[in-house]
Amino acid sequence: MIRHIVLLTWTAEATDEQKAAVAEGLSALPGQIPQLGEYIVGHDLALAEGTADFAIVAEFASVADFETYRDHPAHQQVIAERIKPILAGRLGAQIEL
Amino acid sequence: MIRHIVLLTWTAEATDEQKAAVAEGLSALPGQIPQLGEYIVGHDLALAEGTADFAIVAEFASVADFETYRDHPAHQQVIAERIKPILAGRLGAQIEL
Repeated sequence: MIRHIVLLTWTAEATDEQKAAVAEGLSALPGQIPQLGEYIVGHDLALAEGTADFAIVAEFASVADFETYRDHPAHQQVIAERIKPILAGRLGAQIEL
Repeated sequence: MIRHIVLLTWTAEATDEQKAAVAEGLSALPGQIPQLGEYIVGHDLALAEGTADFAIVAEFASVADFETYRDHPAHQQVIAERIKPILAGRLGAQIEL
């Protein structure tokens, strides 16, 4: 089992509407990508200084399933149309359970 | 429900032994901190360029439980003795489920 973790930081100009559109776009992916297991996305609660703005935690049965998700056109569309326009920084990791 | 996500990057000098000691130290925390729910820690699989080196995903029933974990002496000891000596970078976020 693979856990894929991504933390995103938005530009200062990003609007609440644009940030909400990212969450909405990603939340539609489980219905479009059957290889995607448990999928958690959400806005940072701002409990601490210096945190990222958005987090994604996704579970996959295998590295191949992760790669299917990573390269899936529906995922790439959310990245290109909703994430990239407001993206300031990205850090990710994949770990094995 | 709160999900706490942290990505860590190690210094170039960090040894495999030191990295393994972080995973071992953190993995002992669920037995010491009852407020800690599902707890996933692991080394990055290096499937992509530019990833972090280590990931932590922790589940809490409330922000108060997260804060108990964050400030718990057993957690602070792992941070001070095992993480800080090899830490190059840290990014975190807390999201609500």
